Amino acid sequence: MPINAVVWGENVHERTNKIVQGIYPDGMHATIAAALNTDRAIKATTATLQEKDHGLSEARLARTDVLLWWGHAAHAEVRDDIVERVATRVWEGMGLIVLHSGHYSKIFKKLMGSPCSLQWREAGERERVWVINPNHPIAAGLGDRIELDQSEMYGEPFSVPEPLETVFLSWYQGGEVFRSGLTWRRGAGSIFYFSPGHETYPIYHDAAVQQVLRNAVKWAANPAPAWSSITRAHNVPTPEAPEKIKQRGPRLHKDGDEGLR
Amino acid sequence: MPINAVVWGENVHERTNKIVQGIYPDGMHATIAAALNTDRAIKATTATLQEKDHGLSEARLARTDVLLWWGHAAHAEVRDDIVERVATRVWEGMGLIVLHSGHYSKIFKKLMGSPCSLQWREAGERERVWVINPNHPIAAGLGDRIELDQSEMYGEPFSVPEPLETVFLSWYQGGEVFRSGLTWRRGAGSIFYFSPGHETYPIYHDAAVQQVLRNAVKWAANPAPAWSSITRAHNVPTPEAPEKIKQRGPRLHKDGDEGLR
Amino acid sequence: MPINAVVWGENVHERTNKIVQGIYPDGMHATIAAALNTDRAIKATTATLQEKDHGLSEARLARTDVLLWWGHAAHAEVRDDIVERVATRVWEGMGLIVLHSGHYSKIFKKLMGSPCSLQWREAGERERVWVINPNHPIAAGLGDRIELDQSEMYGEPFSVPEPLETVFLSWYQGGEVFRSGLTWRRGAGSIFYFSPGHETYPIYHDAAVQQVLRNAVKWAANPAPAWSSITRAHNVPTPEAPEKIKQRGPRLHKDGDEGLR
Amino acid sequence: MPINAVVWGENVHERTNKIVQGIYPDGMHATIAAALNTDRAIKATTATLQEKDHGLSEARLARTDVLLWWGHAAHAEVRDDIVERVATRVWEGMGLIVLHSGHYSKIFKKLMGSPCSLQWREAGERERVWVINPNHPIAAGLGDRIELDQSEMYGEPFSVPEPLETVFLSWYQGGEVFRSGLTWRRGAGSIFYFSPGHETYPIYHDAAVQQVLRNAVKWAANPAPAWSSITRAHNVPTPEAPEKIKQRGPRLHKDGDEGLR
Repeated sequence: MPINAVVWGENVHERTNKIVQGIYPDGMHATIAAALNTDRAIKATTATLQEKDHGLSEARLARTDVLLWWGHAAHAEVRDDIVERVATRVWEGMGLIVLHSGHYSKIFKKLMGSPCSLQWREAGERERVWVINPNHPIAAGLGDRIELDQSEMYGEPFSVPEPLETVFLSWYQGGEVFRSGLTWRRGAGSIFYFSPGHETYPIYHDAAVQQVLRNAVKWAANPAPAWSSITRAHNVPTPEAPEKIKQRGPRLHKDGDEGLR
Repeated sequence: MPINAVVWGENVHERTNKIVQGIYPDGMHATIAAALNTDRAIKATTATLQEKDHGLSEARLARTDVLLWWGHAAHAEVRDDIVERVATRVWEGMGLIVLHSGHYSKIFKKLMGSPCSLQWREAGERERVWVINPNHPIAAGLGDRIELDQSEMYGEPFSVPEPLETVFLSWYQGGEVFRSGLTWRRGAGSIFYFSPGHETYPIYHDAAVQQVLRNAVKWAANPAPAWSSITRAHNVPTPEAPEKIKQRGPRLHKDGDEGLR
Repeated sequence: MPINAVVWGENVHERTNKIVQGIYPDGMHATIAAALNTDRAIKATTATLQEKDHGLSEARLARTDVLLWWGHAAHAEVRDDIVERVATRVWEGMGLIVLHSGHYSKIFKKLMGSPCSLQWREAGERERVWVINPNHPIAAGLGDRIELDQSEMYGEPFSVPEPLETVFLSWYQGGEVFRSGLTWRRGAGSIFYFSPGHETYPIYHDAAVQQVLRNAVKWAANPAPAWSSITRAHNVPTPEAPEKIKQRGPRLHKDGDEGLR
Repeated sequence: MPINAVVWGENVHERTNKIVQGIYPDGMHATIAAALNTDRAIKATTATLQEKDHGLSEARLARTDVLLWWGHAAHAEVRDDIVERVATRVWEGMGLIVLHSGHYSKIFKKLMGSPCSLQWREAGERERVWVINPNHPIAAGLGDRIELDQSEMYGEPFSVPEPLETVFLSWYQGGEVFRSGLTWRRGAGSIFYFSPGHETYPIYHDAAVQQVLRNAVKWAANPAPAWSSITRAHNVPTPEAPEKIKQRGPRLHKDGDEGLR
């Protein structure tokens, strides 16, 4: 069974900006999905902001193994209930790959619990993405670095929590550095942030970048059944305690009460 | 200059439940603040849900070094804008100590980015809090463990992100275990979660528990000036790049544009 | 291609102690290897202290994907050059699973960089291994806990570095707790420590424990080519710098010098 | 009471190389100690390879709060028993700050449990040390970055374990990046690695670098009493278990036995 990947694209600049249209005539999400589908282990489809429920119905999310997220101009238009829905699926075990300007998406900020801000410059400068964790699955098949002739500078400090692992670090011609590939876990869900991907440069056409995305999808897919109880506080009644104990002392709750939340 | 600590108490069960009133006649927040104030390095005051802005005005938070948070029955009544305000102060560098049922508070869930759920049982059973990181500042002056004769069981899995450090692990008479003392950082803010503290038992009157709270306040206080720019994405115009570079290639933004968010 | 696993057994108490002989007539390593071999994705063989090079020749290690290590009475007899050899293979990407009293093995202490000590008691008491990270690959197919009727108590503090992930926490009848399943990475090698496994109890005959071991082997196997340069400091001569720079200033090294170490 | 800091210098190139002598006529250790001593909260002295016990007697280490380590040409000459002695003190709670080429020192490799290798180039190029964790105590009083006009390039991959925190990231003129300020904990000891410091450039005369060193000493000092039992596995006899249990089942050890190691 291939990994079910959904590439979510905001799909705004592709329709409103001539430069972006020229690079991604079918939308960035379509280019990314096509790159994923060159690997038979992955079956990628797309979803966009403009679709009903942004293309992310409960049913579709329930069968999604890994979600990729690209947004920039319209973060505010993403519905809060859909963000909550996506977050719950991540906690249950769906992988999430957040791309470039997605650092400011509602879903990424919600899962990080921090501002996720950074420094930036759109100067068409050179970026060199160094592989600092060479045998990490996300770096499979890459050399020691990826060279991007033109890139948007994303500079530190990047206000995210300390990651589980740092996979890539970027060097910029203008003098800055950035942690361009980071991993975290939230509940059962694996999260990868990858910074390259500004829409006015053909970054998702780059073969090495495409390799990173395929690797990341495979890394983020969790074959375990969904951790569907993760948002609930389960009461273990005294008679069901693993060790025999006696109920004693004052109580707030009566037998059978649900907890407060 | 002493550390400015504010003990936030939901202050509901103390007014509505006879048992809790008997143990904490002035409210749990008052007992905790008094325990902190036995150390001259700390100056603790209190704030409650019922006060204007829940007692957490912008001005007061701006001069707060460490906030302690106890809530249980009324998490939903905490105003979202106040939660946002507190989160911003944590990111800027204010310490946050979340107590017991505060695991389900809006502020803790927001900062963790995960459900923060757990298993529980109110059986008045014995809890043994083991110090697993003996020389950690939060464990200063404790022996190898704290014994609590009656406690509410909080059991794993506790759905929080992997912590920076695990300071305490708890054993329960009924057979469960729990990571009862954990640290994280979000932005410049240090966060400590400490699980003992059910309101029907006199846990905040325990000398060792009080020592943990004083230690945690000192550990969480960050003397650095507030990181006030942490929520903003700062643009570095091309002429101000650390290295001399030339603007080139297609652009989305014009000079002087603010970024999208 | 199945994962090549080697189960290393010290093989001392199995030959000298009647109780252990009764439980593991062919040695603990044989029981563990047989349990691994019930999964076709794994091909497990054994190696023991008494063999030439402790059964760990360079050639054999080079084709080993995951090494499991059980030792207790004879840690000191393991040759230092073999320990160095194993460590190098872990850094290159070989997985390592350290079992029970292996916490004090030379290889584990070398890779942790810390004393790896703990508290212990051999009282035949009950141990309950809680799964605190339910969707972790190492917990696949388990319920919420493993019950071991008789176990040696291993108690905190366990002086190892903060782990990458905590997978299991143990509760003991005698009142202690222990982080019984922890992961780390060293170079390209994934390391898992699992504490159950005292030789006077039939713990490696337990179906759930066997499941943990199979899961751990799959989790620890890294399909990437060996990171064979990991121990070398590579000089990048000035003409080969990614960006064109001019040699300037005083130097310690002449062109072509190897670095000091 | 000021923090007792000892600056350990290998003291080889300062005596054999004209360039280094010119920059550090009294040795690098003397320059570093003088920089620390400008802060009254610190009392720094020096120790060198050439002294008896390399200047690190048991008695002196016992009263040392923080040790700074600079070595390059003579790592192999450092006695193994002294390395063991230093490691034990770190585990007990002494802070350790490892500088520049100390990445290949015996003590750092021992505590990391990994090769600690990197890429390098001595071209006198520009290094820009970015503060990526602005409110970390080690970054106190710094701006957003430190500019070093001439530096030795240290490039990724740097084969150390994932750190507790990344404080600094470096940009190099020649195109590489490096995690130039990292923290870890081993036992009770806090460890900081700081990469700038090549001996042919006047880096330890830089005011900002000196500020980093003073900050790091304060951060690494642990006021807790030494964790002197950290290397010992303590037996808890059955009658002394926190919970009353009965001895049962087969045993390897008799009452009063010490454990194997």
